[in-house]
This record gives sequence, structure tokens and C-alpha cells, in this order.
Amino acid sequence: MDADVIVVGGGVIGTAIAWRAARAGQQVTLIDPGGDDPMADDKASLVAAGMLGPVSESVFGEQDLLNLNLHAVGRFPGFNAELEEATGHTTGLRTEGTLAVAYDSGDLAALDRLTDFRHGIGLKAERLSARECRKLEPFLAPGTKGGVFAKGDLSVDNRRYLAALRAAAAAAGVQHPTGTVTAVEDGQVAVVMPGKPGTRPGTDNPAGGPVRALTAHRIVIAAGHATRRLNGIPDPVRKAIRPVKGQILRLRHPGNIPPVLTHTVRVIVQGHDLYLVPRQDGELVVGATQEERDDRDVMAGAVHDLLRDAQIAVPAVSELIFAEANAGLRPGTSDNGPILGPVQTANGGASLIIAVGHYRNGIMLSAVTADAVAAILGGQEPHTAWTPFRPGRFHAPDRPPGAGVSSGGAASPGEAAR
Amino acid sequence: MDADVIVVGGGVIGTAIAWRAARAGQQVTLIDPGGDDPMADDKASLVAAGMLGPVSESVFGEQDLLNLNLHAVGRFPGFNAELEEATGHTTGLRTEGTLAVAYDSGDLAALDRLTDFRHGIGLKAERLSARECRKLEPFLAPGTKGGVFAKGDLSVDNRRYLAALRAAAAAAGVQHPTGTVTAVEDGQVAVVMPGKPGTRPGTDNPAGGPVRALTAHRIVIAAGHATRRLNGIPDPVRKAIRPVKGQILRLRHPGNIPPVLTHTVRVIVQGHDLYLVPRQDGELVVGATQEERDDRDVMAGAVHDLLRDAQIAVPAVSELIFAEANAGLRPGTSDNGPILGPVQTANGGASLIIAVGHYRNGIMLSAVTADAVAAILGGQEPHTAWTPFRPGRFHAPDRPPGAGVSSGGAASPGEAAR
Repeated sequence: MDADVIVVGGGVIGTAIAWRAARAGQQVTLIDPGGDDPMADDKASLVAAGMLGPVSESVFGEQDLLNLNLHAVGRFPGFNAELEEATGHTTGLRTEGTLAVAYDSGDLAALDRLTDFRHGIGLKAERLSARECRKLEPFLAPGTKGGVFAKGDLSVDNRRYLAALRAAAAAAGVQHPTGTVTAVEDGQVAVVMPGKPGTRPGTDNPAGGPVRALTAHRIVIAAGHATRRLNGIPDPVRKAIRPVKGQILRLRHPGNIPPVLTHTVRVIVQGHDLYLVPRQDGELVVGATQEERDDRDVMAGAVHDLLRDAQIAVPAVSELIFAEANAGLRPGTSDNGPILGPVQTANGGASLIIAVGHYRNGIMLSAVTADAVAAILGGQEPHTAWTPFRPGRFHAPDRPPGAGVSSGGAASPGEAAR
Repeated sequence: MDADVIVVGGGVIGTAIAWRAARAGQQVTLIDPGGDDPMADDKASLVAAGMLGPVSESVFGEQDLLNLNLHAVGRFPGFNAELEEATGHTTGLRTEGTLAVAYDSGDLAALDRLTDFRHGIGLKAERLSARECRKLEPFLAPGTKGGVFAKGDLSVDNRRYLAALRAAAAAAGVQHPTGTVTAVEDGQVAVVMPGKPGTRPGTDNPAGGPVRALTAHRIVIAAGHATRRLNGIPDPVRKAIRPVKGQILRLRHPGNIPPVLTHTVRVIVQGHDLYLVPRQDGELVVGATQEERDDRDVMAGAVHDLLRDAQIAVPAVSELIFAEANAGLRPGTSDNGPILGPVQTANGGASLIIAVGHYRNGIMLSAVTADAVAAILGGQEPHTAWTPFRPGRFHAPDRPPGAGVSSGGAASPGEAAR
């Protein structure tokens, strides 16, 4: 045995799992997924903005997902505090809250519906006049019609957060060898070792080095959208994962300009939903597109539209430095819910633990995902908020589409007994 | 003596000079300028678009500059052919010409004035209807009011061109040591050698290594805007140089999109002048801002405006990949003309040869600049088109501002006799 646990996937989900498993006394190896995607190391975690909002348009009516998000947001600050304490890192958690603003009455009506929904589930949200919005954020454009302030909403610097998780995992003894996983089998993974310097291994990449098998008692799959490319993952799970491309900008304040925002600002501009997330260090993240596409090209049209909408809401954005434009692939699923729990390998062998499909909420869900996988590894049940998100829900062909999230995930032939 | 000639400045001007001097039998050392600018290696040559148009708005009424540009454009293809033959490189010279289009009647009137001017000096330029413009470039937006086609205008891939010049210089025996020049003195330059790996030397940079003197019979200054930072350059020359910031985008065609343009397209959108320069390899360069600023920050507002104007002219630009956004500093001068000829060092010592201030036309002027400096080094007069651009024109305090370009540059106290 090379390890007690092999975690496939070094983004926030996989790294959080590896850290917590190692802390619980397991010998853990963390390794990246490979396959035919030469860009697999450009993780969605690194492209993200790090907003931790439990409610968005996508959870209207998805009660199970909302329950899970509320569980996640409740847990995050404690988990983050442990992480900062374990590493001495700061992750840039901000607690000023989120201001959502609208620029026409139709957009304002959409905001009001979201506010009513928040109130209905006991979340705070305060309706603000245009004047109150600009008092909170003086750089907002004069044309705003009003907004809603969600005092409790959090954001975290996603890159600092991932760096802290990596430091914590390393300090807890997690091994992170080079090479990439291309297949999972009974109690082992196939790892393509690095080839010549400067080349990147992959299934069909002749520059990749020899293939090695790593063995472990349990294998955890946290490979995000790249899970689709791994051999040995049961087909129903693979097919449930859909990449959702997101394009995002990172701006920086020049020395002579004060912070243009202090809260996360969401803007609805003629139905487009835009967010601007300020960091303490002067970065302002502007995002994001949502496209059912499988490439990571940054497009001229997307950069233009993001800048245009950001400038409509906050004209001073034009005076910020254009630092980065990135595209990432969110690991969406066919019912927008994550997938968490044990399954058997595609050839019916020993069980894998699946922890994928976190879609737009990977950072927020990372803490409770690590808790849930640690529970499974320790022979316990995860928190009940996870029950509807078992992999088995994608195995029942006679269930109407979309019903999986709300109906709980009973065990099915492909799901290992627990 | 370390060399016959030291050329300070490794952009297109300095490298072209070094190549031609070495080909003429001189022992040449090429070295980059340093000083307190940590970004000095981000050469304007690399940020440029590579348009070779002898006429632009800036030369209306500047007859001397126009004469020089016409001399330069006539010489460029032959020089470029020698360069390609010497190296086996291709520089991406394109001969399809430039189409200038307008989107309202005021912009069209401005184009007509430029066309009349071109005709007045014997250059070809053909007035096209909107329909004819779109026949030439089918991806142009329907709203065009008409345009002007300049069949003879050229463009070159500025990065390939500089790479070819570097290869030619190296093959001709030009030495290009690491280290940066911070001062020029009598027959020598002060070179700060590299310090620790990964650090960059500079006058005030403690990470820089020891300062070494390199000696030569002649020293050529081709350091662009960084010439301002070099100690030993006569004050009138230093003060005549002004940096003009330009921001520029590089887009790429995805595999499924045919080239959106085949000619260089200049667009006037409500007085803004934009150009789109296509490359054979699928790149499309979109530029450029002109700002009297001394920083190289890429700004969100500039990226937005360039993309907006490009999409107004060619809507399919939105479907191209956003590959790069860059900013560079053009070496402008106080009368917009280049500065070429011998001067004495600031302390009155041996003569330097100055070849700076090429502003927006560095690529186009590089061939005739190399010819002119080779002539001076060989004891001959440069082409008469250069006569008005001697350094001495900045030495006469009683001359009215701006008159220098048109009145020829008589020898003055700071200018060495030749």
C-alpha cells in the first residue's frame, strides 16, 4: 500500500479533503487528474472570485441545495479559522456583506423577488434606496434604482485560500507527487509520470513518462470537471458532470486611487448578473460569464462585456489596472447539485468516494465537503444536508429528470452499501 | 578597446544598426539601457503593431517628416528582403494595403482630407463606397459610410521582425552581453552587471552586480524613451524626448473562424483613430491609445474602449480570443521628429551618435536609420532626408518652438563637427 487514502484532484475540494483526512491520522497522497486535457492544472478554484453567498438565482426552488449551502456558510468561518491557525496564512475572509444593485425597474423587481425569498428562509436582507446604496458605496454610478444589502454574506480570496489549504495539507504530511492520474481501478490509480522537462504527461501524450500504479485502501475522486476524463469512473457519474465555462477579470488599484468598493457588489444590468469582489490587497475581481462550453479561451467579446457592465455600475473601474483575464471550467452537474458519496469502480471493483460537481460553490462547499468525506473515511454518516446528493441519484433511469435533488438519493446498483 | 562600436539599445533601431555596422566589418557590441526603470526591457518594438504607413494625421504639414517617411517606406522592402535572406526568417511583410473606413459623415470628411493630402504628394489612395469597402472586407459592420484604400501600404509582424534582426546581428558577430548601461562617457559606457539570479540591475538597485566599463571607438545611442535615463546624454537631447504611452491588444482567431480581415483596417469612430492589423498566422493586433504618460500599466478603460471601437467596426471581433493586452512607451520628441546624428557627451568629451525619437514609426524608420548610422560610422553623410533631424536643432534657445523639423538642423555648440 502506498497510502491509506489517495485523493485525485488538487483544487480546493481535493486539498481540503486531503488536509482533514491527514489530520484525522490517515496517510494521504494527493495527486492531480490528467487525461487528454493539457490544461487540467488550471483549476476552477484559481479562476473563481470567492463569493460565499448561500442564495443565488440558481437555488430558487431547490430546497435541498439551499439547505446544503446554509450548512456550508455556517461552517465556513470556523473551518477557515482553523486553517489560518494551522498555517499562519491569512485567506482574506471579508465580512462586510454583499450589496446587490439594479439599474432599471425590471432589474429591481428581480432583486425584490430574491429579497422576499431570503426573508422567507430567515436570511437577512435589507432593501436600500438609491441614496442609501451610494452612501454605502460612493463610487456606484448615479443611475442606480436601489438595491438590497445582505449583511451576513462573506467572501474569501480564493487563491490565498487554496495556498493555505496546500500549506496545511503539506504540514499534516500529505504527499503530493508529480504525475497525473488517468485511471482509477480496484484500490489503485494509474499515474503517468512526468516525461521530458517542460512537457506535460497525459493519456495520449507521447511526451509523458512511464505509467505507475499507486495503491491505497480508499480512493477519493475530487477532480472537478476533469472527472469526466478519468477511466474507471462509473458512467452515470461521468455523464452527470457538465463543464460550465466562466470568464473573469482581475483588476488592481493604481497607487493614487482609493478602493472603489468595500463590499461585494452584485449588479443586475438588463438581466445580466455581474459581481465585483474587492480584496484587502487592492484587487477587484469582476465576473463572470456562464457558458455551456468546454474550452478555456478568453474571448474578446466577454472581456468587453464584463468591462462595459462593470463600468455602467462603477464608472471608476475604467481607472483600474487590467491585471488578468482568465477562463475556467466549473464542474456543473445535470441537476446543479454536487455529487458526494461512495460508488463502485466502473468494473464493479472496490469502492471509490466521489466528491465532485460543486459548480459555482466550490469554495463555499469545500469545508463541509471535507467534513463529509472525513466522516465517510471514518465509517460515519456525513451531515444529513448531504443525503440528497448521493451519486446513486443518477443511476435510476425511470426517475423524471431534475427530481434527484429534491427526492433524496436512495442506494442504487452502482452505489456501494454503507 | 572592447569593440569598434557599442550600440546602446536592443529594440529594432539598435539591433538594425548593430547588424548593419557588423556587416560593414565593424566589431559591434549591443547592450540594453538600464537606469532606474525596471521595465526597460519591455521595448516599444515588441508592443507595436508594425504598420508601415508613410502618412498619418501627425504628418499634415510636417513636410520634412513626410519626406523621411517616404524615403523609409521606399527602402523597407529591400532591407527586409536582405534580412530574410540573411537569416532564413520570415518577418510577415504584408502588401495587401490599408483600408481606412468611417462610420459617420464627420469622420468621412476627415478621411477625405487625408486622401486629398495623399493625392497632393503623389501617393495612391482610392475613395471607396460603403459597398466597395464591405466587398474588400466582408466582416466590416454594415454601418460604414465609406472609406479610402491605400494599396501600397505595408505591414510587418513587429515581433518576427525584431527576432530576425537579432538573429542577423548574432550571425554577423554582434556581441550582446547581459548587463545594462546606465551612463555614457568618453569612449566608454558604464555597465551594471547582473546581480543575483532573478534580479535585474539598475543604478539604484542594490541587487545589481558590479559596474564595469566597456570601451569602444564610437558609441551609438538607440535607447528609445530610456535615453532620458542615461547619464552623459546632453541635456537638450534628453529633454527633447517624451514618452507617449500606447496600449494595444493582440487577438487570435479560434480554429473555427476564418480570418476576419485581410487588409490593415484603420477606423475613425467619432474622432477616435483605431487600427486593426491582421497577421498571416491568425493574430489580429488592435491599437492603440496615445497618452502623455510614463507608466506601462494596462488600464481597464483602455481595454474596454479598444474592444468597443473594434467591435463597432468589425463585430466578429467579439468571437476572437483575447490573447494579450500590453502597454509600451513610444519615444516621442518635442517636435515629433526623430533625432539622428553625432553629439558630444554631456561633459564635452568624444562624440556619441544619437539615433532616437522614432515615436510611432520605429519599425518603418529602422532600415533607413541603420543605413544613416552606417554612413556616419563610415565617414559619409546620411541621406539628405535626415538633414532636418540632427540633434543640434534642440540646442538653439532663440528658435521658435516646433520650427526645428522644417528648418534643417544647423550645427550648434553641442553638435560635433563632421
